[in-house]
Amino acid sequence: MTDFNKELKHKIDTKTKPLGALGKLEDLAYQIAKVQKTLSPSLKKPTMLVFAADHGISDEGVSPFPKEVTWQMVMNFITGGAAINVFCKQNNFDLNVVDAGVDFDFPETEGLINAKIAKGTKNMKLTEAMTIEQCKQAMKKGAEIVAKKVKGGSNIIGFGEMGISNTSAASLLMSKFCDIPIEETVGKGTGHDAKGMIHKKAILTEVANLHKDKISPIEILSAVGGFEIAMMAGAMIEAYQNNMIILIDGFISTSALLAAHAMQNNILDHCIFTHKSDENGHVKMLEFLHADPILQLNMRLGEGSGAAIAYPIIESAVNFLNEMASFESAGISKT
Amino acid sequence: MTDFNKELKHKIDTKTKPLGALGKLEDLAYQIAKVQKTLSPSLKKPTMLVFAADHGISDEGVSPFPKEVTWQMVMNFITGGAAINVFCKQNNFDLNVVDAGVDFDFPETEGLINAKIAKGTKNMKLTEAMTIEQCKQAMKKGAEIVAKKVKGGSNIIGFGEMGISNTSAASLLMSKFCDIPIEETVGKGTGHDAKGMIHKKAILTEVANLHKDKISPIEILSAVGGFEIAMMAGAMIEAYQNNMIILIDGFISTSALLAAHAMQNNILDHCIFTHKSDENGHVKMLEFLHADPILQLNMRLGEGSGAAIAYPIIESAVNFLNEMASFESAGISKT
Repeated sequence: MTDFNKELKHKIDTKTKPLGALGKLEDLAYQIAKVQKTLSPSLKKPTMLVFAADHGISDEGVSPFPKEVTWQMVMNFITGGAAINVFCKQNNFDLNVVDAGVDFDFPETEGLINAKIAKGTKNMKLTEAMTIEQCKQAMKKGAEIVAKKVKGGSNIIGFGEMGISNTSAASLLMSKFCDIPIEETVGKGTGHDAKGMIHKKAILTEVANLHKDKISPIEILSAVGGFEIAMMAGAMIEAYQNNMIILIDGFISTSALLAAHAMQNNILDHCIFTHKSDENGHVKMLEFLHADPILQLNMRLGEGSGAAIAYPIIESAVNFLNEMASFESAGISKT
Repeated sequence: MTDFNKELKHKIDTKTKPLGALGKLEDLAYQIAKVQKTLSPSLKKPTMLVFAADHGISDEGVSPFPKEVTWQMVMNFITGGAAINVFCKQNNFDLNVVDAGVDFDFPETEGLINAKIAKGTKNMKLTEAMTIEQCKQAMKKGAEIVAKKVKGGSNIIGFGEMGISNTSAASLLMSKFCDIPIEETVGKGTGHDAKGMIHKKAILTEVANLHKDKISPIEILSAVGGFEIAMMAGAMIEAYQNNMIILIDGFISTSALLAAHAMQNNILDHCIFTHKSDENGHVKMLEFLHADPILQLNMRLGEGSGAAIAYPIIESAVNFLNEMASFESAGISKT
C-alpha cells in the first residue's frame, strides 16, 4: 500500500462510525479520492451525454418498437419529457443529447449535439454495421464532445443512450468481448414476448456467425456495434484520459465499456457501476468486469437513467469523507 | 382493483418508457400515490428523528464500545459531525436528536429534544428493561414529537437511533416478534470478534429465557426493548395515523417497527424500507415483513443513515410520476 492509500484508509477508518459501517460508500469514497489523488475529493459539474442512433438490424424485427421511436424519443429528450430529463433536473446534471446517427433530420436545437455519422448503421445480418473508418470517426466525435465538457470544468460524467434495437448490438458485443455464447446474452430489451425472443435469438445467432472471424476490438465494434455505442466508447476513453469519474449505466452503456476496456484496460479504475439492469445479460457483463453496482432496482430503461438516479449516493460518499468528524476531533471513546 | 388504483397504474404505464422499465421506482410511486390518495403525490419537509438512549444490558459487556459513546455521539450529532448530519444536510432533511433516555445531562441545545424517561433502562438480564408505564410514556412522547412535525407540514419521516448495546435489544425483540431462536438473531453490532459474539449470544440467551413468558406486544417491548426503541415505535404509529410516509432504516429501526406492527397491522402500507443492513438478522426481519428494501450497500451504521441516503431515490419515484411525458402527450409510437 502506498503512503497516500494508507493515509486515505486512515481518514476513512477514523470517522465517527464503527469500522467499515458505511459499506459501499467507503469503497466509493476510496475510489474517487484515489482517482483525484486527494484526501478531499470533489464532484464538479456532473455531465450526462445521451447518444442516440438507429440500427440497420431493426429491419429484421428484433425490437417490438418501430424504428421511428428513436427520433421521437430524441424529440422527447429535447422537450424535457423523458425519464432522463426528470432525473438530470433533480440531481443537477448538465444534460446533452447527441445525435450519433439517427435516421431523421432534427432542427437545430439547444441541448442537441449534431454528431451524425450516417442515418443509421447497415443491417449487420448482411454486412458490417459500419466501416472501420466510420467507427473511428464516431469514437473521435465522442472524444471531442467529452474534451469540451472537461474544458467546461466537469470531472464526473455519465453516458446514456437511445436507439431502437441497440440491445441486439449490445448482446453481440457482449458475446464477442466476454466470450459468452450469443444465446446467453440475448434479453427481452424493451419488452419481447416468448415468440419475439425466439426470433431475436435466431437473427442474432445468424449475425454472430457472419462476424465470427472479427477479432480486434475495432473490428468487432465496427461489425456488430452501433454509432451511439462506438461514440460512447470513444467518449469513455477520453473521459479516462482526462481523469474523470465515469458513471456506467445499464446493458448498452456497459457494452460500450467492454469495447473501451478492450482498448484501454486501466479505464475500470475510473468507472463507477451505477446499477444492475433487469436486462438479461447485464449481470454476466458485470461479472466479467468484476463490477459491483450501487443500485439493483430492476430498471431497464437506458437513457443513462440508472447513472442519474445513483448520483446522490456517490455524493454521499464524497460528503462523508469531507464532512464527518473523526473520533479524535469529536472526543469519542474507541473500543 | 379500485378505479383510483386503475387510474394510477394507467398513469405509470403510459409514461414514455417500456412497460415496467423503471422497476422499483414504479412500485414506490404507486405506494406513495396510494397513501396520499392522489395521482400527483408530493414529498414535503422530510424529517429525521434520531432517538438516543442507554441500555442496562451494557453492564454485561454485550458491545465492544463503552456506554459513554452514546452521549458522546449525541454531542457529535449536535455539533454536526456524524454521518446522519452529513446525509441530512445533503438531502435537506430537518434533523432532530431526541434524548429518550441517555445516561448524561445534556445542556439545552437547539436541535436536541429532551424526552428523557430515565437515565438508561435496567439490566434486562436481571429484570424488565422498563416498566409497562415507562414504555407507554416513551411511546406517547414519540407520538407527541411526530404530531408537532405533522403540524409543521412534514409528510415523510425517517427514524434513526443511537444507543450502545441496542442491537442486543433489537435481537431480542426480533426473536420474540418473528418467533426466531435468539441464536439466529444475534449479530456483530458495532463490530464484535468471534469471542465477543459467543459472549453476546450467551448473555442474550439468558435474557430470552428470563422473559420467555412475555406475550403481548407492550410486555415484550417493556421487557427487552429500549427507551429509544419504544419511543420510535410510538412515533411510527403516530406517523401512520397522520398518513405520513415512514422511512424504515436498519436493524434497530426495523425492530421498533416489529413492535409497532404488532400493535397496528396496517402500518406497513406506509413504510418504505430504505436499505438492507449488513447486520446479521436484518434480512430475516425484512423477510418476516415481506419487505424489499431500496438499497443494499452493506451499511450497518444506524442513526437513520440508510433512510437519509435513500431519500433521493424516493424523490426520483415521485418526480417521474409527476414530470414525465406520456406516449400520447409526446407523440411517440407504441409497440
